Amino acid sequence: MDDGISRNNNNSNQILCPIKPIRCIVKLGGAAITCKNEIEKMNEESIEKVSSQLRQAMISGLSSLKICGMDWSKRPGNSEASPTVDDFSDQSLLDSDRFIVVHGAGSFGHFQASKSGVHKGGLNQPLVKAGFVATRISVTTLNLEIVRALAREGIPSIGMSPFSCGWLTSERNVASADVSMVAKAIDSGFVPVLHGDAVLDEAQDCTILSGDVIIRHLAAQLKPEYVVFLTDVLGVYDRPPTEPNAVLLKEIAVSEDGSWSVVKPTLKEMNKQVEITVAAHDTTGGMVTKIWEAAMIAKLGIDVYIVKAATDDSLRALRGELKGNNVPEEWLGTVIRLLR
Amino acid sequence: MDDGISRNNNNSNQILCPIKPIRCIVKLGGAAITCKNEIEKMNEESIEKVSSQLRQAMISGLSSLKICGMDWSKRPGNSEASPTVDDFSDQSLLDSDRFIVVHGAGSFGHFQASKSGVHKGGLNQPLVKAGFVATRISVTTLNLEIVRALAREGIPSIGMSPFSCGWLTSERNVASADVSMVAKAIDSGFVPVLHGDAVLDEAQDCTILSGDVIIRHLAAQLKPEYVVFLTDVLGVYDRPPTEPNAVLLKEIAVSEDGSWSVVKPTLKEMNKQVEITVAAHDTTGGMVTKIWEAAMIAKLGIDVYIVKAATDDSLRALRGELKGNNVPEEWLGTVIRLLR
Repeated sequence: MDDGISRNNNNSNQILCPIKPIRCIVKLGGAAITCKNEIEKMNEESIEKVSSQLRQAMISGLSSLKICGMDWSKRPGNSEASPTVDDFSDQSLLDSDRFIVVHGAGSFGHFQASKSGVHKGGLNQPLVKAGFVATRISVTTLNLEIVRALAREGIPSIGMSPFSCGWLTSERNVASADVSMVAKAIDSGFVPVLHGDAVLDEAQDCTILSGDVIIRHLAAQLKPEYVVFLTDVLGVYDRPPTEPNAVLLKEIAVSEDGSWSVVKPTLKEMNKQVEITVAAHDTTGGMVTKIWEAAMIAKLGIDVYIVKAATDDSLRALRGELKGNNVPEEWLGTVIRLLR
Repeated sequence: MDDGISRNNNNSNQILCPIKPIRCIVKLGGAAITCKNEIEKMNEESIEKVSSQLRQAMISGLSSLKICGMDWSKRPGNSEASPTVDDFSDQSLLDSDRFIVVHGAGSFGHFQASKSGVHKGGLNQPLVKAGFVATRISVTTLNLEIVRALAREGIPSIGMSPFSCGWLTSERNVASADVSMVAKAIDSGFVPVLHGDAVLDEAQDCTILSGDVIIRHLAAQLKPEYVVFLTDVLGVYDRPPTEPNAVLLKEIAVSEDGSWSVVKPTLKEMNKQVEITVAAHDTTGGMVTKIWEAAMIAKLGIDVYIVKAATDDSLRALRGELKGNNVPEEWLGTVIRLLR
């Protein structure tokens, strides 16, 4: 169970294989796309900017192209659907370039899940069962909005709920997941958009499957070139970033056995012990969990970048400019990579 | 290809098997739940009444129970999420009683699909690709609203998009579909809610998979006791029901070879030839298609009822009161069953 993926992994290994490699898996952190302290409130400004950056990262060099929106549905305040059918020509299609987007829940789902205890299982209890339904309604509402925001930027986004895709857990680790539909969607030129979800669990009936665990599983199966976590802080710090002496950890090296150490800044530069504390408010795990999840990905030889959403730094990470040993001094964020 | 299900049917046959039989698959016709002539306009009143009838059909005899809503999300005009956590007790849980709901698109998705020609395939064309994305946004928007309406009635509804569930077609027939997650959801006490969807097609890249084809496939795989189609007219007529001499066909018998004939009213009663005409506006097929789809289900020995939504007649059908040869004279609707 060293990588959290148990061995009854169905037959998904045989059938997925996308035709070409995946370029990037992006996590849109719940804190970056929602207002964490207000129930079911999206951070529209951040979502719009992140969507625009994703578009720029995917098209690289063709930024002058007219955006042909793919959300033709009504929006609040707009009574009309807005088709732009005439705008489509062979030149204007965004080659979606093999990205997968996974987003967290932020202020969607958390309330419903924690009130009912969905993560602890027990579907025979009415409150848990109702909470499961309520949680899925909330997180799929957010998923639909993220898909629409990406589509408005001309990204051919396709919402794919882990529950529907057959993701099952056992003691909160992924027990089976048919990744073949995700691979098929990518091979057909779409950008799958998955999300943290309420799912069935073989050991305890049900649980919450976090976006981070989804990414780790997808990375292990689909081997992207790199993974980007977009968050609401600059990267990983040695302590909660709100504390006055918090230090941004710019590079973390992971060894083959999964242990990790801070490479940059050096201990001498920091002049103190690195201490990581878990933020108590984060129900799906704080920074230690995040580093551990990222380390599990880096162990596979896949570079991981943790960076603040909607900044110049995030755009560079999304574009793949940091690949190899190509991280400039001024770049703000955390690189987690395999010690070679 | 006599039943429209090609033979490369994956391994779904081996792994689905729900623990107990399915009681009923219900189709919510697009025309019954949306306003067909206005883009993306739900028929709220009908949806509410249908949801309430489904609840009554599922609980049979316990209608005095307090409804414990499972949609805890914000709604337009309500700034607050509305949890009713305190209302849940062991007594108040609705035993969901093994129903599956499948709904059509009505005025959702049709516009996007027909503008772009998604049903004809060709994902290499930018317009088709964009239309595919736009169609899925529209139909999943409706799906979310149907799931929420059911959840507000205390039905533990779970949205499951055919695309995400791995439904693939070949020349518009179902080529493969992993029904195991639908079965697992039912075994866990949920009511899966599927919908007509844009899906990948092995022969032509993509197409539209109609709710009727989904139902036929689910019925063949999961063998429900009966199937109910809720529509916006009383049932199947011999010609468009708007025509003055249209006659409601009350019973259609299907023989083993799939051919069908009208049993009630008798030709003598009707005093004329039965003529079925296809309504030109219905892109996924008119009444002939509907009868054919229903006949394919009846051929399996599963009774099919086609009845107007939100009527006393639909409630009786949903409750299973018409099973066997138990159709009272005054019941308005169409029964399609195997000639025994």
